[in-house]
Amino acid sequence: MGFFTKDIETMDDLFVHMLRDIYYAEQQIVKALPEMIDKANDPQLKQVFQAHLGETKNHVTRLEQVFKMHGTEPKGIDCPAIDGIIEEADDIIGEVADKQVLNAALIAAAQAVEHYEMTRYGTLIAWAKQLGRSDCASVLQKTLDEEKAADQKLTNLAESKINLRAAS
Amino acid sequence: MGFFTKDIETMDDLFVHMLRDIYYAEQQIVKALPEMIDKANDPQLKQVFQAHLGETKNHVTRLEQVFKMHGTEPKGIDCPAIDGIIEEADDIIGEVADKQVLNAALIAAAQAVEHYEMTRYGTLIAWAKQLGRSDCASVLQKTLDEEKAADQKLTNLAESKINLRAAS
Repeated sequence: MGFFTKDIETMDDLFVHMLRDIYYAEQQIVKALPEMIDKANDPQLKQVFQAHLGETKNHVTRLEQVFKMHGTEPKGIDCPAIDGIIEEADDIIGEVADKQVLNAALIAAAQAVEHYEMTRYGTLIAWAKQLGRSDCASVLQKTLDEEKAADQKLTNLAESKINLRAAS
Repeated sequence: MGFFTKDIETMDDLFVHMLRDIYYAEQQIVKALPEMIDKANDPQLKQVFQAHLGETKNHVTRLEQVFKMHGTEPKGIDCPAIDGIIEEADDIIGEVADKQVLNAALIAAAQAVEHYEMTRYGTLIAWAKQLGRSDCASVLQKTLDEEKAADQKLTNLAESKINLRAAS
């Protein structure tokens, strides 16, 4: 894309472009999480990933709601960023020999995903507000709050148990 | 990588792996920022990017210092995550027709980079502390603080001026 045409002319076009980017990203995360749940060697970590899979499916639905509010058909576009982040997660999962160390690596991988989502939702909310679409912003804000909470849960779990066991 | 061997056996191996990942990432960011400086259509935004290029070069040096403290040769490894984030930034820069809208897109792209760095440094600091390397953690903390400050500067600039102009 972008080699021959410049399709984004307005801030609203940019908003829709980013909405499509994160719509694709959330769908990829729904596909990636089951392997992370499977590979996690700690019941609490499995549970956090499992709960986040449920939330992520709901984030996809919320994005469809935002597309509808905006009057645009829900459609994803390629998002090399999330593809790269997930590829890197797969790489590292394949390279770790020890089960406790793998848990620490899984948390790091999941937090990279969370941070990508946090930056995109943060941007989308700011743009929606600027475009006078506080209705869209408030739906997106619910997801951002859940991403931040999921990230914090992973930090707490890493610092209270997982990192300690991985290093011992 | 990772298809035939499992090279990461200990938490220390994982720490070094992630150090190499972010070392490669910082070097790619040093290469990517000049185009962003060139494409920015706002003197303040150019200045923020320019200042961050200086900081990023210093982050590379700091990582070399951490490798040295750890007794490991500084070496990067492929990092599909940062490659994807930068590829996506290039794509969007190529698709935006309007100069004011482009500034908003550039800020979003830069904040995706910042968030990737924040998650990796946050993880590295937690792991360094767990491994009893508070000396490494305190050097990495300086960089994390600068990444957070750079991200906040971009948010302030977006919300005080850039988004307003892009939407008008």
